[in-house]
Amino acid sequence: MGAVGGPGRIITLTTDFGLEDNYVGIMKGIISRINPDVRTIDITHDLPPHNIAAALYQIETSYRSFPTGTIHLAAVDPGVGTDREAILIETDQYLFVGPDNGIFGFLKTGQIRKIIRLNSRRYFSVDISDTFHGRDLFAPAAGYLSLGIEPDQLGKKLKKITRFREFRSRKTATGLRGKVIYIDHFGNLATSLRAEDIPSAQKTEIVIAGENIGGLKKTFGSVKPEEPLAYINSFGYLEIAVNLDSAAEYFGCTYGDRVEILFAS
Amino acid sequence: MGAVGGPGRIITLTTDFGLEDNYVGIMKGIISRINPDVRTIDITHDLPPHNIAAALYQIETSYRSFPTGTIHLAAVDPGVGTDREAILIETDQYLFVGPDNGIFGFLKTGQIRKIIRLNSRRYFSVDISDTFHGRDLFAPAAGYLSLGIEPDQLGKKLKKITRFREFRSRKTATGLRGKVIYIDHFGNLATSLRAEDIPSAQKTEIVIAGENIGGLKKTFGSVKPEEPLAYINSFGYLEIAVNLDSAAEYFGCTYGDRVEILFAS
Amino acid sequence: MGAVGGPGRIITLTTDFGLEDNYVGIMKGIISRINPDVRTIDITHDLPPHNIAAALYQIETSYRSFPTGTIHLAAVDPGVGTDREAILIETDQYLFVGPDNGIFGFLKTGQIRKIIRLNSRRYFSVDISDTFHGRDLFAPAAGYLSLGIEPDQLGKKLKKITRFREFRSRKTATGLRGKVIYIDHFGNLATSLRAEDIPSAQKTEIVIAGENIGGLKKTFGSVKPEEPLAYINSFGYLEIAVNLDSAAEYFGCTYGDRVEILFAS
Repeated sequence: MGAVGGPGRIITLTTDFGLEDNYVGIMKGIISRINPDVRTIDITHDLPPHNIAAALYQIETSYRSFPTGTIHLAAVDPGVGTDREAILIETDQYLFVGPDNGIFGFLKTGQIRKIIRLNSRRYFSVDISDTFHGRDLFAPAAGYLSLGIEPDQLGKKLKKITRFREFRSRKTATGLRGKVIYIDHFGNLATSLRAEDIPSAQKTEIVIAGENIGGLKKTFGSVKPEEPLAYINSFGYLEIAVNLDSAAEYFGCTYGDRVEILFAS
Repeated sequence: MGAVGGPGRIITLTTDFGLEDNYVGIMKGIISRINPDVRTIDITHDLPPHNIAAALYQIETSYRSFPTGTIHLAAVDPGVGTDREAILIETDQYLFVGPDNGIFGFLKTGQIRKIIRLNSRRYFSVDISDTFHGRDLFAPAAGYLSLGIEPDQLGKKLKKITRFREFRSRKTATGLRGKVIYIDHFGNLATSLRAEDIPSAQKTEIVIAGENIGGLKKTFGSVKPEEPLAYINSFGYLEIAVNLDSAAEYFGCTYGDRVEILFAS
Repeated sequence: MGAVGGPGRIITLTTDFGLEDNYVGIMKGIISRINPDVRTIDITHDLPPHNIAAALYQIETSYRSFPTGTIHLAAVDPGVGTDREAILIETDQYLFVGPDNGIFGFLKTGQIRKIIRLNSRRYFSVDISDTFHGRDLFAPAAGYLSLGIEPDQLGKKLKKITRFREFRSRKTATGLRGKVIYIDHFGNLATSLRAEDIPSAQKTEIVIAGENIGGLKKTFGSVKPEEPLAYINSFGYLEIAVNLDSAAEYFGCTYGDRVEILFAS
C-alpha cells in the first residue's frame, strides 16, 4: 500500500458473524499469522444478518475516523457461495476489502483509484470454502496489504463496483421517499434520506409509519419526553428518534420500512 | 504524562454504548489517528445505561490491574448536553478521562494530583457535538495524553471532582444501609457497603428484599444449593449471591435496591 | 518459550465469562502489567457456562489459525475451587494455559512436549482466590510465558493431561452414537462425530431427535429451504443444519443431545 503512505498498521473489521462463536477470532488469527504486527480494531460484528444497507451505513459513518493507510475489511454477504466477486478497493487514503455486493457503495466513483478482484493463485488457496470467505479471502488479503504487498499482486483489475440500489431516494408526487437503514441499540432509526436531499429553503414534514411527525428539529429538547422527532444526525442522514424512548418500538418499525419527506406546496 | 513514567501505551475503555453499533469503533479510530501505536483495551461497553454507580464500581475494581501510565477513559453520562464538565484526573500512577459526574468518585482526594477541564481550543474542535463527547472530547484527550502531551495543555485546572452521593452508606437505628450497585452476569449483587463498614468484632446479619440471610460467609460451600449468602467479594465490597443460582432473580432485585446490615445489640 | 521460536507476541483468550462485566478486561490488565507489548486476541467469551465440550471444540477449531509461538489461554472451569490442577502445555508450535479439566483434550499425546502444573511460589501469589483463576493463575502464566520465561520455571512437570470422555463416539448395534457439542449463533449443530469415524465406502444415514435425515450432503443447495441436512464441516466434524433456518430450533435440540450414524447393513 505504498501509494497511501507505507504499510497499513490497522485493519478494521465489520461483520454479521456475532461474537459468540470463534469466527472473528479465526479471522484475526489468519491476519496475525501473515502480519503479527498489524492491529485489528472491531467496528461491529453484530450487524443484522446479510443486511447490506446496514453494513454500508456502519462502514460509511466510521471509516474516516481511522488514520490514512487503514485497511477496512467487511464481511456481510448474502451472496457467499454465488458468483459475486471478492474485491479490494483503493482510495486516496484507505483500502477496503470484502464482497462486491454493494457494501462499499458509499464510495464515489471519483474517490476510487483501483478495484482488484481477489483471485491471485499465488496469494489465495485454490481451495476457497463456499461459506467462509472472511477466513479464506478477506483476512489473507487484508493481511498481505498490511505488509505492503501491492493491490495489483492480489488479482486482476475490475472497472467498477456493484452499487446498492436501495440507498437511492425516490421522488414522489409530494416529496421524497426513503427507508429505515439502521436501528441502533437505543432504537433510533437512521434512514437512507440525506441532508442534501432536503432543500433548505423549503418547509418540510416527515412521515413515518403513517404518522406525520412535523419538521426537522435541532435537539431532543425540542420535544417533550416520549415524543418523536426527526433531525439530521452527525453523519448527515435523516434520523428519527423518540425523546427518552425507542423509536423502533414507538413506531413498531424495522429495517426497510418506508419514510417520507413532504415538501410544502 | 511524563509525570507517571513516559507516554502511556494503553488506553482502557468503559462505556454504556454497547457493541452492536460502531460507536466504540469510532472512538478507537479517533484514538488511533492521533496515536497509531497506543493499544486500547475494553473493560466493558455493556454497563446499564447512564448508571453512574455501576460505572464507578466497574472502573474502581479494574483500574489497578493495568500498568503504571495507563489512561482510563470512561463514558457513562446521563448529563451529556448539560453543563457538567469533561475532565481528566492525574494520580501517581494513572490518568482518568471522562465526564465529571461522579464516575471517578472512588479516587481519594489524597490520590489526586491534578484535575483538568478539557476545554483547550488548540486540542479540541470548537464544534463539540452535544451527544457524542466520547468521540469529540474523551477519545482525543486520551490519544493526546498517550503521546505524552502534558495534562495542563488540555485545559484549565479545576479544584475538585464531583462526588457521587449514592455510594455513602447511611447509619440506621440498628446498623447500616446501602444499595445494590452492580449485578454481574451470574446475577450476583454487589452492594455499596464495604468491608471496612463492618466492625469485625461485632456479630452482624444481612437483610435484603425483606429477608434476613444471616451473617457473612467465607465460601459458597457454606450454604446449600439454591440458598442465599452474603460475603466480602475480592474487591472489598459486600456481595450477595445464591449458591448455583442468580441472586437477582431469587430476590427479584435490581439496581438501587436497599441492603441492610444489622449489628447485634 | 525459546523452544517454539522466541517470546510469544500473541495471547488468545477463550472463556465463559461474558463481556458484560470487567472480568475479561481485568485479565488483559494483568497480562499487560507483566508484558505491555504482548497483544491479546479474543476467541470468544460467550461459551455456554462450564461447558467443557463446547470450549474444547472452539479452541480446537481456531488455535492453528495463529502464528507459531502463540499462547492460548482458556478459562472454562466447572471445577474452580476444587483440586483440579492449573496447567500449561507445550507443543511444537504453541503453548496452552488453563485448567486441567479436559478442555485441551484435542491435543494428541504425541503432540505434547511438556505439561507443567502452575504452582511456582516465585511467579504466583500464595493467595490464589478460589473463584478467579483466570486473574490469579492463567493470566500471569500467559504473561510470563510471553516474556520468554521458560515453562519449567512456572511449576513442576506432570505426566499426562485429563482427557474428556464425552468426546468419544460409541459403537451401537447399527452404527455410531455421538452428541451435540456446539451450537453456533446460526443454530447449526456441531457433533462429537468426526469424518474419520465414517467409513467412506459405506452408505450411512444420520438420525437426530428421532428423525432420520438421510445421508451426508456436500452443500446447503442439496436440500430445499427449511429442510435439514448433515455434512462434514470445515473443521472435520459432522454438523447438522437446516437450510436458511436454525437446526437447534427445528429439532428442539440442545447441548449433549444424542446424534446417531446408521451404517447400511
